[in-house]
Amino acid sequence: MQVNDVVAYIQAGRDRFVADLKEWLTIPSISADPAHAGDVRRSAGWLADYLRGQGFPTVEIWETPGLPAVYAEWPAEDPDAPAVVVYGHHDVQPVEPLDEWDTAPFEPVEDGDRLIGRGTSDDKGQIFFHMLALRAGLAASGRNAPPVTIKLLVEGEEESGSAHFAELLRTHRDRLDCDAVVISDTTMWDADVPSMCTGMRGLAVAEVTLRGPSVDLHSGSFGGAVPNPLHAMAELLAALHDADGRVTLPGFYDDVVPLTDEERELFARLPFDEDDWLRSAGGSRVAYGEKGYTTLERIWARPTAEINGMWGGHTGPGAKTIVPRDAHAKVSFRLAAGQDPRKVQMAFEAWVAEHTPPGVEAEVRAAGGVRPCFSPIDSAGVKAARRAMERAFGTQVLFTREGGSGPEADLADILEAPLVFVAVGLNGDRIHAPNEKVEIPLLLKGAEAAAYLWEEFATALR
Amino acid sequence: MQVNDVVAYIQAGRDRFVADLKEWLTIPSISADPAHAGDVRRSAGWLADYLRGQGFPTVEIWETPGLPAVYAEWPAEDPDAPAVVVYGHHDVQPVEPLDEWDTAPFEPVEDGDRLIGRGTSDDKGQIFFHMLALRAGLAASGRNAPPVTIKLLVEGEEESGSAHFAELLRTHRDRLDCDAVVISDTTMWDADVPSMCTGMRGLAVAEVTLRGPSVDLHSGSFGGAVPNPLHAMAELLAALHDADGRVTLPGFYDDVVPLTDEERELFARLPFDEDDWLRSAGGSRVAYGEKGYTTLERIWARPTAEINGMWGGHTGPGAKTIVPRDAHAKVSFRLAAGQDPRKVQMAFEAWVAEHTPPGVEAEVRAAGGVRPCFSPIDSAGVKAARRAMERAFGTQVLFTREGGSGPEADLADILEAPLVFVAVGLNGDRIHAPNEKVEIPLLLKGAEAAAYLWEEFATALR
Repeated sequence: MQVNDVVAYIQAGRDRFVADLKEWLTIPSISADPAHAGDVRRSAGWLADYLRGQGFPTVEIWETPGLPAVYAEWPAEDPDAPAVVVYGHHDVQPVEPLDEWDTAPFEPVEDGDRLIGRGTSDDKGQIFFHMLALRAGLAASGRNAPPVTIKLLVEGEEESGSAHFAELLRTHRDRLDCDAVVISDTTMWDADVPSMCTGMRGLAVAEVTLRGPSVDLHSGSFGGAVPNPLHAMAELLAALHDADGRVTLPGFYDDVVPLTDEERELFARLPFDEDDWLRSAGGSRVAYGEKGYTTLERIWARPTAEINGMWGGHTGPGAKTIVPRDAHAKVSFRLAAGQDPRKVQMAFEAWVAEHTPPGVEAEVRAAGGVRPCFSPIDSAGVKAARRAMERAFGTQVLFTREGGSGPEADLADILEAPLVFVAVGLNGDRIHAPNEKVEIPLLLKGAEAAAYLWEEFATALR
Repeated sequence: MQVNDVVAYIQAGRDRFVADLKEWLTIPSISADPAHAGDVRRSAGWLADYLRGQGFPTVEIWETPGLPAVYAEWPAEDPDAPAVVVYGHHDVQPVEPLDEWDTAPFEPVEDGDRLIGRGTSDDKGQIFFHMLALRAGLAASGRNAPPVTIKLLVEGEEESGSAHFAELLRTHRDRLDCDAVVISDTTMWDADVPSMCTGMRGLAVAEVTLRGPSVDLHSGSFGGAVPNPLHAMAELLAALHDADGRVTLPGFYDDVVPLTDEERELFARLPFDEDDWLRSAGGSRVAYGEKGYTTLERIWARPTAEINGMWGGHTGPGAKTIVPRDAHAKVSFRLAAGQDPRKVQMAFEAWVAEHTPPGVEAEVRAAGGVRPCFSPIDSAGVKAARRAMERAFGTQVLFTREGGSGPEADLADILEAPLVFVAVGLNGDRIHAPNEKVEIPLLLKGAEAAAYLWEEFATALR
């Protein structure tokens, strides 16, 4: 397969590619809005038809108790060739506030190299480049099947929480058996700084309640002589970090996969402007976090504990001089590679129990958790994908991670396969916001990278 | 003046006393309810008429921008005799919840030695015994005027915050000139443990706001890398006390009048059951406070800092993984004898500014303050009142203080006179609650003590 052939095919297919994508983008597949459930189904149907038209031998609509996913499979000729699940989603975010859009969100518009509209970047555009990649790879290689078995799985509920996704994966576990999962739902550092995500932090969530007296007490009669649950809460939460900004839960860092020197060095090559970043952080005035780590390391690769909410006692206007009966806090932990949400929640429960003063009763309710996901930069899949990206972009590809995550860990855990993030969205694409856009040349680069990726995977994952 | 004569007069006058008091108690003088403003005025008028009937040479209604007070003066024969302001109030608390009353709140009922109804103890009954005392003293001494000049000041807005009381005192400052202020609006330890209050804690109130980013931030993107105002609030408030339960504001204890060994010894004689007290404190499980002090010392004679309310971030159902933009807390300080609310508020503001971490902006709004009031147990007025109480009760009189206060400090400060608390209410009188009652024999003891008090004051305050 010659680079020239792939590039030529993709360039020749550009207009058709954009025209087809625009047709899909006109379907308002907003999964969070029940009024658009029919549109999400229509979007799944449109995609299934399109995939059949592209030559996929198998195309199915996979129903869930919510909204449907689309599954398509194109087997490699070689029965021993690796299999790859390509994950994306065909549902989109709501479009409010509508009056901040310069164009109609579901009437996609080309503005030079840009394609503007809901779903252009997140995630229809990024799913779509895989089809162009596949056709280009077949054309350039002169074969009728890709070098790896492609299993395309396009979810319909990602933007509303992927409520039925894990169950869907378990149901179809056998058919989804694979050697790697390619995720095309993230971003690169910048148009001229191509990069690959290698991990996403997980999440553990808990709510703490501290109870003191059975009723609010008059602080004149009782203040200073009985424990105050708000004092206990302040002391508890203040003790959650040490002076170096480290989380004090015993064993909290034990399972964290440490950053390698190489990864830190590659992170450091990213042209990161901390002042710009602080401005984007609601005008935060200083960077602050775990000692010994940079801002990017802190938000991508280190676990954290955050108080998301806290309340108790009198919170209305004026003064009410009470010793309140209880105090509450919502705490969440962002988990780095290697950590287990349930283990962190249990450690937190034990720690709260141990740090609750006499006369105060503590209750911790753990609620939900998301496992972190991570692919080492020296793993076979990541290395192969980096080569494919570098062939397409003609420059060094760096690495990023993401601070939060969606259903990615489920893919890794249930399918028991490494994740490889190949995506060409930009942070400036305004995903989830008005005037979402995508850079068409980057979608074409994505197609090119994906075409090489199947070739690279064919040997690397064997 | 012979004890026998005073006692005989009071016993003979009992039924008339109770009958007159019951008539006054039928007037629902609820100052907090604008619908009862007319009743509060009627109560003032009734009292003024009654006082004229009792022989007071001067009786006046003192108007305020709110509800009226009653002033009555009965000069001593000796122009050099001391003058005493007797303070009480003729307004009463609301009566809700009405269905918890066993009798109609404004249809006072005698049940053996008890008189049941709103205002029986707080404060009409306790004002009323002074009239009986005065008549008994005159009868027993055979004179036409008391041994000290009596200046009776009966407020009409005490139960709704005494909003215009300080101004009233300033307006009539010259006429209220006195050598002591007798307060008859508190309680004794118990019916068989007569005691006198010697001080009331003051109050300083403040609200703290800590501001971080200009908007709530996604904790996946920014958590662990910028300051979180809720963390800062937890650390700030946790630092407000040290490990010994002492308030850490610099200089906080500097002005506090220390407890004397004698006062501590007398407090310790009170039959205090800490388990009972904890039960009354909303079932609190342990006593906790400043190290080195007993519970009674903590709530009466030591200053405290309490968090009355705290809030910030997500406080609704479910999880919202944010770094919140701001955090809030309401803090109040109970002030012991010697402390100044404004000084404490300023120390708190300075302390918050100093303890706010970089990247977080702090604002402290101080709101209102009440000065503490205090009369040393070895002061002339307290010693004289104790002698009078001991003559009436025939047993040792102990001392208490109160954890909170009303307008008492204004009386002491504006009239520049020591406060002397002579009252016979009980903690079990259910003041402010349904089924308020008073023990009639204690009201008569109060009358007896007051009769002796004027005699004692005539020499002690000269």
